[in-house]
Order: sequence, then C-alpha cells, then structure tokens
Amino acid sequence: MSSATLPPEPRNQVDDPSSLVARFGASEPLLMDSGGSIGPWQIGYQTYGKLNADKSNAVLICHALTGDQHVANVSPLTGKPGWWSTMVGPGKPVDTNRFFVICANVIGGCMGTTGPASTNPATGQPYAVDFPVVTIRDMVRAQAALIDRLGIESLFCVIGGSMGGMQVLQWAVSYPDRVFAALPIAAAARHSAQNIAFHEVGRQAVMADPDWRGGRYLVEGTRPSKGLAVARMGAHITYLSEIALHRKFGRNYQDRSAPTFSFDADFQIESYLRYQGLSFVERFDANSYLYVTRAMDYFDLAAEHGGSLAKAFRGSKTRFCVISFTSDWLFPTSDSRAIVHALNAAAASVGFVEVESDKGHDAFLLDEPEMFAAAQGFIDAAARARGIA
Amino acid sequence: MSSATLPPEPRNQVDDPSSLVARFGASEPLLMDSGGSIGPWQIGYQTYGKLNADKSNAVLICHALTGDQHVANVSPLTGKPGWWSTMVGPGKPVDTNRFFVICANVIGGCMGTTGPASTNPATGQPYAVDFPVVTIRDMVRAQAALIDRLGIESLFCVIGGSMGGMQVLQWAVSYPDRVFAALPIAAAARHSAQNIAFHEVGRQAVMADPDWRGGRYLVEGTRPSKGLAVARMGAHITYLSEIALHRKFGRNYQDRSAPTFSFDADFQIESYLRYQGLSFVERFDANSYLYVTRAMDYFDLAAEHGGSLAKAFRGSKTRFCVISFTSDWLFPTSDSRAIVHALNAAAASVGFVEVESDKGHDAFLLDEPEMFAAAQGFIDAAARARGIA
Repeated sequence: MSSATLPPEPRNQVDDPSSLVARFGASEPLLMDSGGSIGPWQIGYQTYGKLNADKSNAVLICHALTGDQHVANVSPLTGKPGWWSTMVGPGKPVDTNRFFVICANVIGGCMGTTGPASTNPATGQPYAVDFPVVTIRDMVRAQAALIDRLGIESLFCVIGGSMGGMQVLQWAVSYPDRVFAALPIAAAARHSAQNIAFHEVGRQAVMADPDWRGGRYLVEGTRPSKGLAVARMGAHITYLSEIALHRKFGRNYQDRSAPTFSFDADFQIESYLRYQGLSFVERFDANSYLYVTRAMDYFDLAAEHGGSLAKAFRGSKTRFCVISFTSDWLFPTSDSRAIVHALNAAAASVGFVEVESDKGHDAFLLDEPEMFAAAQGFIDAAARARGIA
Repeated sequence: MSSATLPPEPRNQVDDPSSLVARFGASEPLLMDSGGSIGPWQIGYQTYGKLNADKSNAVLICHALTGDQHVANVSPLTGKPGWWSTMVGPGKPVDTNRFFVICANVIGGCMGTTGPASTNPATGQPYAVDFPVVTIRDMVRAQAALIDRLGIESLFCVIGGSMGGMQVLQWAVSYPDRVFAALPIAAAARHSAQNIAFHEVGRQAVMADPDWRGGRYLVEGTRPSKGLAVARMGAHITYLSEIALHRKFGRNYQDRSAPTFSFDADFQIESYLRYQGLSFVERFDANSYLYVTRAMDYFDLAAEHGGSLAKAFRGSKTRFCVISFTSDWLFPTSDSRAIVHALNAAAASVGFVEVESDKGHDAFLLDEPEMFAAAQGFIDAAARARGIA
C-alpha cells in the first residue's frame, strides 16, 4: 500500500502484527468462484492450544459477518474480550487444553486477510471495488490453504454461527473427508430473499454516502462513515428479537421521563443504535462490509448440486450437530430444519437442538447455557469417537 | 413560499389544486402536543358521496405513513388508483353511495396539508425542521377542526390501517362522543421499540445525506433523494412478510439464471427494492418523512392515561372492530389483542378479526376478501344501529 495515498489513521491494516499471517505468493493465487483470482494474498489468523502428535485435534472456528480471528483473545483493535471467549478457551466447550483451535479472518475481510483495502499489485493502490466478488466457498478455499500450510490433513471439528455456520456447511460439502465433525449454529444453507433485502439496503446506505467515492475512499482520503453507520444500525435490529428490544429498551426515554419532541435520540433504543453505528465504523472497512454481505447473499449450497441440498451432503461421513434459536427471525429454526432434513435424506449423522431463547439471532454470541451444553456434549462425543484424549 | 427559493420542480406543493383545502387563519392556530403551534394552516382533503340530511353518515378514513387524501380517486401526482379504492367506493365496504367519505392529508404531511415544506409565516421560507414535532393526537386535532368546518357533529365511522389505525384509536379516545364506530386495522396502541428502531434508521439515512442540508434542502435547491430512498427501501422490507418476499422473488436472478458476481441489482428482490426507493422520492418530501415517522414513535395511548389503556377507553360508547393479519410482524396480532383486551376491560363494544394472510403488514392495502367481509359486516351492522339507510 503506497503510504502517500493512505488516510491519516488507517484502522484496517492488512499487516496487523498481533495476528499470525500466512502468506501465499503470486505463484499460489487464490482462484475464486467469480472467475477472478488474487495473488499474492495472505490470511490473518490466531491459534490457541497445541496440535497433538497425530494432528487429530484441530478445531476451526469460522467467524460471522463482522467478526475476526480474535475468537478467544483480547482484540488488539477494540481492547474487548474475544468475541466467543464464552465458547472457546481453557475448560470451555471448545477446550483449548484439549484442542488446537484456529480462527482465520475471511477473504474480503479487513483484519489481516487480503480484502478490498489491501494493495492491488497491479496498481499499487487498494483494490477497492476491483477486488473480485467473494463467495462463502472462496472463504473456505482460503481457509483450506491455511490448513494445508499448517500441515493438517483433517479437521476434528469446524464450528461457526451465522455466516460462520454457512462456512461450516460449505466445508462439509467442499471437503467432506477433511471434516470429522461440523457444528453450524444459527445458520442456513442459503440466504433468504428477506436477508438479501436487508443486506442490499445496507450496501445502498454505504454507496449513497458521497464519501464512499465509488469505492475509492482510501485513495481519496475520505471514509463513508455515515453510510456505514446507517447500514450497521439497520442490520443490528435484525440481530435482536422484538422481545429483547422491548425488554432492554421498551419505550424508555433517554435521561428523562417525558419526550423532548425532537429528532434527538429521545428514546434509549435510538441512542443504543446510534452507538452501535458509530463504534462499528471505527473497526470495520466499508468495502469489506459490501463484499462480505455479498458473499452471504450468493450463498446457496443446494444450487451447486442441482438444487438438492441432500445431494450436496450425499456420502458424507461427517457428524453434524445443528443448533438454532427459537427467537432468531434472521436465520429462523426453519432454515436449520431444512439442513437437518437434507442431512437425514443423505443418511448423514446429525443431531439437532433448538435452543429456547428470546435473544434473537445474536443469541449464538451470548451466554446461552443450553447452547454451551449442546456444543459440549457433541464435541465430547465426537472427541471420544476420534480417540482424542 | 418565496418562489425565488424553490427548487426547479417542486413536487410537493402545498396548494395542490386537485384537492379540497380548508384554510384556518392566524387567529385559529393549531395548538400542538409539543407546545408549539402553527397558524395560519390548512388541510388538504377529498370527499366522496353525499352528506345526508341529519349528517349521520360521515365516514373518516385516516391514511398511513406515506398515504394521502386520494383514497378512492386517481392520484393527481402518481396517476395511480386511490390507495384504498378496493375498500372505498360505490358498492365497496365503505360504500360511497351510502356514506359521505372524507380523507384528509395529515398535519406534517406533504400533500396539501401544512407540513415542514410549507411556508413559515415568520420567515417566508419553508419551515423545514422549525416545524413543530407532530403527534398522532395533533393529526387528529387537525382532522377534528376540518370536521367542525364541515358542520359534522359526530362521525359515523373512523377507519384506518397502520398509522391510520393509530389515528382511529386516538379519535375514539380524544373525541369519544364524536365517533359512533371505529375500525382500526393492523394497528397498535403504542409503537414498539423495534418499530422505533426501524424508523430511527430511516431518519438517520435521510439526515446522513449531505443534500439534506440540516433540513434546509428546499431553500438550498437540493434533495436528499439517496438518503430517503435508502430509508424507504429499509421500511419496505418491514411491510412485507418473509414468505411474501420468498414467493414473489425468492433467490431469482434479474434477467439471467446465473450470478454476475457484482454489486449490481443481481437479484430480483434488489431491483424491486431500488425501484421502491426511487419511485418514493418522486412523490414524498424528506422532512415530512422525518415528522410523520416521529409522530408514530411518540404514539402511546396508554401513557396519556397513567399507563392504562383500559382507562383511555373507559366509558366509551363507540363500537369497535379490530382487525389484524397473521403474518404482520410490524404490527403483530399481539398488538391488536392488547387493544381488544383493554376495550374488554373498559366494557366497550368490540369485535376482533385476525385475518389469515401471508402478505405481511401491507395486507391491509391489498386484496384481502376476509378483511373486506369483516369490514362490510361491521359497517353494515353499525349503519343499521344508527339508522342509516
């Protein structure tokens, strides 16, 4: 990246020193579903625990839309605990005393893996919208290259929620022999029309911001912060349930008991959403938001197999556990049931747990004892089956 | 409005010649809940049918967020049929051969009634954000002034869906002796946290548009069209059910069978939403959008009565019929049930119909035979009770 063209404080450095980085040269390009390719490219990742002698205890965690590789360590960017430190760590369901845990930033992201903010070797400037459009399969292909580089033949388990769960499913379909167990949570085998619609509104909000500059904001020294904040605010509503919003905020006024009759953040819910928007733009690249949402939109696992999800899983020896949440209206239980039905039709091994929760889609990131218990039980049984101590 | 300060093609004229207009002088100001007032002011309205000799057959239709007074006539702005011509007209449930039907544009609107695009007499320029924040009660207060002007003591029926239903409820509470029958459809007695949240995102999208100019876009010759289009796109999703979106659009691609791997409107749902956004900005004023959404946010009928909705209705002699739709997740049936329970607790006369529909909130505007039948039955029975031929 040419330093002369950088804005004063680039927050999304592709060489974040706090992450491990696997680099792939121009001779090892990443070939992508769109027909495009990138190279050289790199993948930023974190690991926890130790790989055992027969390399049978590796667990891959796949992150969601705005997640990163800092699943169980304090984020160097935000100073906050790892985004899934309730699930991953010593003595946790994904026990780092037993397992070698890997989490990598996705292709198209902005946390150490090559994405639209990275330098395009053809121009010496950020790719911006010249970056090839990314798919979930491209994300998984990049992770597979990392797993190869780490010398791991077969993953013990692949785990993720939301977009992470899409990657779990894609892993099981693209590399059935490399996935012993798979745990997709609050996920779907295809993105729904409603979810595409919400994503499109978010992208339009970003692209409507004149500071987006046709995607070239890094070179032009601007940031489409207002548009990205609006996108995040809208998306955030979909991550919560109506009940959770009512319980947390209701119609409570901010700092007073009566309305101010203004367009200020009069209600607590408004103040909360504005904060969500503002804090998000501090940590996330706007073009990455476009690319990663687009990857989810294009996800349709059955489409690769003549429209049959069961065909996608045919012959799979992977053990699956599918988890959904009762109040998740973004990735409703019916989406998880469709996965389970397809796995049943393919005669695959599958368990299904619908967790009673009123916290909406974000429940997978929160303290949900029933989810932890289900994950723990599934992982422990699978570990016994694989002979992991 | 000073013609020198107007943009080239003002689409939202406050003196639309195709509507009737009731004007109120500076000596008849509209006093508003915020403590503000406006005057002189005016209200644009339409009527259909004839007022009978004893003035007992007047029906008031209240429009929703982006509706207008053209309930049963071709809109002079869009050239489209009246927005509820399925419900209102000769031989329709609200039969203009029997009833004298009135529909007025709301205060804060942009279709002939005074709103933020109207001239502020204090400055000679559009009010913009100096217009007082409006409430549902202010809208109803303005309608009551119109009804007075028309010499009507008591309305036979007040009918409306969504925000129109909020006005129906407010009418019944503010003027119990002036409402013989009330038909709120797909409504609520208070706006939920989730709905406030969606509105806030829309407002932020408008206000993030630099062409909004702190609200002064009319004077400065700009239009926050991109921000308003994003707001409309997001809102539009909430008006439809997930099932309706899936049935209409699914994951179908636009004009081709394969993805283009781009940020174009690749999916039909994207193209549809973009069209909704673009066509909306042609017909609606951005500041009116802020004001009218805000009015809905502030609506909480129980709050005026010590938090008890039943108290709000105490002693009411109005006959109510409450209608909801099974797939409406914006104003779910539980909101309508809360109204019905309060009316029961107040010993009011109330019927309740939950219409089976998979079309979401917008069902109230669509061809829903069960809704028409319920409305027809309720109106006919009420007309007999009032002795209307």
